[in-house]
Amino acid sequence: MNDKKIAGEKAIEFIEEGMTLGLGTGSTVYFTIMKLGELVRKGFRVTSVSTSFSTTKLAEAQGIKVIDFNDVERVDLTIDGADEVDTLLNGIKGGGGALLYEKIVASISDKVIWVIDSSKIVKQLGSFPLPVEAVPFGYKKIFNKLNSLGLNPVLRMREKFFYLTDSGNYIMDLHIGKIVDALSLERQLKTIPGIVECGLFINMTDTVIVGKNGKAEVLSK
Amino acid sequence: MNDKKIAGEKAIEFIEEGMTLGLGTGSTVYFTIMKLGELVRKGFRVTSVSTSFSTTKLAEAQGIKVIDFNDVERVDLTIDGADEVDTLLNGIKGGGGALLYEKIVASISDKVIWVIDSSKIVKQLGSFPLPVEAVPFGYKKIFNKLNSLGLNPVLRMREKFFYLTDSGNYIMDLHIGKIVDALSLERQLKTIPGIVECGLFINMTDTVIVGKNGKAEVLSK
Repeated sequence: MNDKKIAGEKAIEFIEEGMTLGLGTGSTVYFTIMKLGELVRKGFRVTSVSTSFSTTKLAEAQGIKVIDFNDVERVDLTIDGADEVDTLLNGIKGGGGALLYEKIVASISDKVIWVIDSSKIVKQLGSFPLPVEAVPFGYKKIFNKLNSLGLNPVLRMREKFFYLTDSGNYIMDLHIGKIVDALSLERQLKTIPGIVECGLFINMTDTVIVGKNGKAEVLSK
Repeated sequence: MNDKKIAGEKAIEFIEEGMTLGLGTGSTVYFTIMKLGELVRKGFRVTSVSTSFSTTKLAEAQGIKVIDFNDVERVDLTIDGADEVDTLLNGIKGGGGALLYEKIVASISDKVIWVIDSSKIVKQLGSFPLPVEAVPFGYKKIFNKLNSLGLNPVLRMREKFFYLTDSGNYIMDLHIGKIVDALSLERQLKTIPGIVECGLFINMTDTVIVGKNGKAEVLSK
C-alpha cells in the first residue's frame, strides 16, 4: 500500500472533534485531507485554516470548512508534510513552495504533526535542496549573495517563468549537500535583506508519522 | 534655511560622474534628487536605481535615468534619509514605508550616506516607532506576538485602509521608547515567521550628513 497514504491517514487519529486545524500542503497531507473530508461529510466538526491556495481548494472540494487564518484565535493542531526529516525531527520544507505560510501557521500551532513516507528520513539535512523565499526586488543580488556563500542557489522555474509563491515572491533552492549547523544557517539566511523565509523548520514538531512498508510509525521526541 | 535642503544638497558633493547611485526615499533625500536633476539636465551622467515607486517617479520627472535594480551589477553610492540616528550612526528607517527596498539596496552598496536634519539625532534609538514589515497572511498573529513581547505594535493605516508597502505587505510600528540592544532586537524580529524586514539599520552607513542651523555637518565613523 502507498506509504504516503498510510502516513497521511494515520494522522486522523490525532484530530479531535471541535479542533481548529492547520492544513499543510503536499502529496502526503493530501491523504489526510481526503480522509478528513470523508469524516466531515459524515458530520465530524472541525474548523480549518489552510497554508496554500491549492490546499484551500482541495479541502473545500472535500467539504471541509476553511476559514481565514486571521479569523482564528489559535490553531490546535497542524498536520503537514516535509521534504526531509532528520533524527532530531528537524526538517526541510518548501518543495511545494508553501514554506512561508506553513511556517507561520506552524509557529502559532499548539501541536504540529508531520506526515511523510520513509524516503524522507535522513541522518543529516541538506540532500534535498533548501528552499529560500526572496522578494523579486533585487533577486539577482540575493542570488549572487547566496552563491558567494557557497550555497549553490538555483532559481526555481515553472515552465518558462519564475516560480511565484502565494505571496508573489521567488524561490531559490539551495543545493548544499550537507547542512552542518541548521540553526546558524537559518539565522544567516534570514539576516540577508530580501530573504523572507527559508525552509528550515527547527524545533517545530515533536511528532512525525512515517509510512514505511505499508505501516505507520509514530516518531516522538 | 531649510536644514533638510542643506543636508540633502550637501550629499551631491559625494557623487562622481559615471556612478551608479541608489536613491532613497523621503523628505530630505528629496532635495538630493532635485539637485541631482539640475546637474543631470546640464549633462552630468549617472545611472540610478530607486528604493520606491515614489522615488522612481520623482527622479524620472527630474530627468534622472532610473534603471531596474536587477539590471545593475553593483551600486557605488546610496543616498537615503533616516528617521533616527544614534551616536554610532545606527538608525531607524521606514517612516516612509520603504524600509525593505532601502535595506536591500543599502546592503549591496559600496557606500551609504544618510542625509538628515538635526532633529533626527538621538542618544538612543527607539523614540521613533520602529517599523516592521509583515506579510498580510497571519498578520494578527504577528501583531499578537509583538504585543506579547512588550513591543507595543500599531498597525499602520492609510486613511481607512491598512497601509500597503510596495511589496504588498503591512507595516506595524513598534512603540518601544528605548531600544537597549538593537542588534538582538533585529535578530529576534527577523526570526518571527511572517516578518519580512524591520527598520533597524545597523552598521549600514559610515557617513551621515546633518543639516543644523543652516549648515551641513558630516559625521563619519
